[in-house]
Parts: sequence; structure tokens; C-alpha cells
Amino acid sequence: MNKTELFSQIRMKRSFLCIGLDTDILKIPGFLKDTGDPVFAFNKEIVDATHDLCVAYKPNLAFYESQGVAGWVSLEKTVRYIREKHPAIFLIADAKRGDIGNTSSLYARAFFEQMDFDAVTVAPYMGEDSVKPFLAYPGRWVILLSLTSNKGASDFQMEPMASGEPLFEKVLKTSLRWGDAGHMMYVAGATKAQELARIRRIIPSHFLLVPGIGAQGGSLREVAQYGMNAECGLLVNASRSILYASGDDGFAEAARNEALNLQVDMEELLLEAELL
Amino acid sequence: MNKTELFSQIRMKRSFLCIGLDTDILKIPGFLKDTGDPVFAFNKEIVDATHDLCVAYKPNLAFYESQGVAGWVSLEKTVRYIREKHPAIFLIADAKRGDIGNTSSLYARAFFEQMDFDAVTVAPYMGEDSVKPFLAYPGRWVILLSLTSNKGASDFQMEPMASGEPLFEKVLKTSLRWGDAGHMMYVAGATKAQELARIRRIIPSHFLLVPGIGAQGGSLREVAQYGMNAECGLLVNASRSILYASGDDGFAEAARNEALNLQVDMEELLLEAELL
Repeated sequence: MNKTELFSQIRMKRSFLCIGLDTDILKIPGFLKDTGDPVFAFNKEIVDATHDLCVAYKPNLAFYESQGVAGWVSLEKTVRYIREKHPAIFLIADAKRGDIGNTSSLYARAFFEQMDFDAVTVAPYMGEDSVKPFLAYPGRWVILLSLTSNKGASDFQMEPMASGEPLFEKVLKTSLRWGDAGHMMYVAGATKAQELARIRRIIPSHFLLVPGIGAQGGSLREVAQYGMNAECGLLVNASRSILYASGDDGFAEAARNEALNLQVDMEELLLEAELL
Repeated sequence: MNKTELFSQIRMKRSFLCIGLDTDILKIPGFLKDTGDPVFAFNKEIVDATHDLCVAYKPNLAFYESQGVAGWVSLEKTVRYIREKHPAIFLIADAKRGDIGNTSSLYARAFFEQMDFDAVTVAPYMGEDSVKPFLAYPGRWVILLSLTSNKGASDFQMEPMASGEPLFEKVLKTSLRWGDAGHMMYVAGATKAQELARIRRIIPSHFLLVPGIGAQGGSLREVAQYGMNAECGLLVNASRSILYASGDDGFAEAARNEALNLQVDMEELLLEAELL
């Protein structure tokens, strides 16, 4: 999916919501545990209940890997289900991968060939040759970590370089040479909305994947104020606040209500920005 | 496995070799492709042929993930086989993971509970709370990236911070507060042996996992000269040079010969350092 198509989906759905499929087998309703594949059964109900309200789903690989082979089966089924039922949904593997070139090539094969993801999140620490193999796939995306939403972001990302800029800005500027706004997005933590303005000055036209809305506490209005551009340029993620809105058999309806609340807020922000 | 036990294995085997199981289904001998699980069949032969010459195996997760569910099955079988046959071998998941705390907890569950690895490689970019969950498992290890062996290491790791030190030194110093030499090791790229001396000044007693011997071109003697400490303190990895020493049905014997060459060199270096 290219950038124009993504913006078109955002306008059509009046939403820039990404739903994080952080599906924890310990948290899903008990009655699903009698199905053969509870994680897939849960994801399927979430997707059925929310697909018209979001433009992207983002399975978090850790949750699937923690279940071993069974988890990988649930993941592949989830990806296939979304692809078949809702081919225009943008699918992100939240994997935070990154290794030497020949290894990153294999990760790219895993997410773009073995599975049919549109994008994968990549960690920048190992530099250009750890990222480039993911950019070799036309129509697929790298979503590079720049500023994350967790406390540990202050350990290195916010630390000043000799040039005066913090590391995350150095990551933004250096990685601009690796691929353009048609192939790269950036993770930009929403708990630091003021920082979004600085990020936007460096990368005015790139899409940002913004975690930290909901359970992590970011403000949607601030994110839009500082981060929105002429093509929206935002995918705002919520995971736990939607998935676990209710722990009983009404979980899918509760998830829809949470997603709907966000979609309504997003529609208002898109209208205010005159993008609809 | 604790540090004393690891050093004891090194003395017993007269080797500090780690064999990287970067098993690429496209590179393994054709005759194995008729077996039900060629990747496991290959790994089993490699392990049978080399287990007395190395102290650690390091499956590279990307190679397994690139095969989807089948790859994950091969990985779990490989780990189980090594654990059952050679319980004193140190098992490293080369996964380069790292995410917000609740997600890193799930990765830790994947590698330390779902599978029975001793250690996992972790990327530092997201800071303390992305690393800590891996340290919550007694007797398990974090191997944190500091200076890697690839070209892209110069993009950020070698870049100077405002304090004057390069980022990888900042990573070393900051992470010293997270866990001690009994729970953390560091990846230190062997293609820059001079840098090992600087790393050793900061972390004199930690084990270093050194990639880049063999296909990546590092010198074993230089690594020992600059990196060895009183408990050896080194795990030196070779992957492709051993696994693909021969592409035909003599591959296991050829792998053994390559591993033996390294073990003999390592024994000499251990003797020179008076550690045997």
C-alpha cells in the first residue's frame, strides 16, 4: 500500500486509528479458551467488531512468540484472515527487529514474504545496513524507532549528541538518507507531544506511528496538534484500552465502543484540519 | 548457568567457541531436503559433530522466522535436542529484541519459559525498562548490544555524545546500573579489536559475545589480546564459516574441521593466558 492509498483509507474511514493486537492469552475471556485457537478466535472477534473504525492493525510479535509454535500459528492465521476479509487494511508487524544485513534480509523475508505484512517496526541501533534490506521490497514499509513512549526513552534517545541534538533527532536525520516518505515511517511516542513538533520540523511529510494513547496516557488532541500534516501523517495506536475494555463475553462490543470513541475524536480532528 | 560454571566449561573444553546456528534452508545440502524437517536435521548433524569443541550455540532467530511456523518448529526441536543431549551447553537466542516493559516481559517468557535458552541478545535503544524484564529470571542472561561488527555500527554506535564518549560507551556505562557481570554480557564486534581495549576498561569482568570471526573477518588473536580477562570473559562466535564449510554430504565433517581449527587456536590462547 502506498502513501496516497493510505491517506485515502484514512479519509474514507474518517479515522487514523491503528489497533494493536497485543493479544495476551492470560487476559482473553475464559470462554474462548475452549476453542482450538483462543488467540486467533479473540483476534477474529476484535477484527470483525472494529475493522470499519481503524485503518491499521498491529500485531505485537512478543505476544505470539511467548506461546511458541502455537502463537506463530495464531499470528499467521490472524494475518491471513485480515488480508482476506479486509485487503485495504494496513498491516504492521510490531517486531522491533534489526540485525546485520544478511540477517535483516531474513527478517524481511519472514514479514513480507512468509507473511503478508505491509510494514515492520525496526530498531535503528545497528545503522543503515540493518535497515536497508527491509526497504528492498516495493510497496512495503519500514517503521523506524525514533522516540518511543516508555520511560527508558530518556536513557539514550533523549541524550544529547556532540552536535547538540538528542540521539532520536540524529536517527531521524541520518535515516532520511536511507529511504523517503514513501517507504519509511517513524515511531514517535505520544507521551511527549511537545517533541512531536520537533520531529515534524525534521520530517514534515513522513507518517508517524504514535503509540501511547490509552493505557500509556497520551492525549490525542495534542498528537494531532503537533503531528498532523497535509496527508494526516499519523497512525495513532491503541492496544490494551481496546482489547481489554471488557473481560467477559461482551469484549468485542466493548472493544468496538472504545474504538468508536477514538474514531469519533479522530473524525473531529480531521475535520478541524480540513482533511475531510 | 552462572559465570563460574561457564568458565569451568571453557576450561574443560579448552574452547570459548560459540557456534551460530544461522541455518538457511537455501544453503543446506540438497539431500537433507527429503527429511521431514531439513533445518533441524542439519542442526542435529552440526551439533553431533561439534558439541565437544564449543561451549555455546547461538540460533539466529531470523533464519527460523523466515520459514514461518515450520521454522519455529525447527527452532524448538533444536533447542530441545541440545538441552537433552548436552545440558551443559550455553544456549543463546540471537534475537536482538527490546520493547516497552510489558512487551519485553513477553519476549522473556518466549525465550526463557516457552523455550529453555540461557541468554538472549537485546538491543539497548529503548533503555532500562526494555531490558529489565529479561533480568528478572535467575540464572538467565541478557547479552546487550554495545558495539556491533557491521558497517552500520558507525551510524550511531560510534557517534560521539555531548559527554565526548561514543554512544556504545554510554550504553555500557548506563547499563552497568541495570545488572551485574553475573547476569549481563555484551555484544562487542570483533572487526574493531582496538575498541575491545576501551570496552574492557569500562567492563573488566563481564563476558563479551564477539561476532565477526570467520565470514566477517575478525582476528581471533587480537580479540584475545584485547578482550580476554581472568575468567576468559569471551565467547567468540563463528557461524557461516562452520555451517557452510562444505555444501555436500560431508558438511558435518567439514564443519567439525573448521570448529576444531578454532578450538585449537583458542586452546593455545587460553594456555598463553595461563587459564588452563
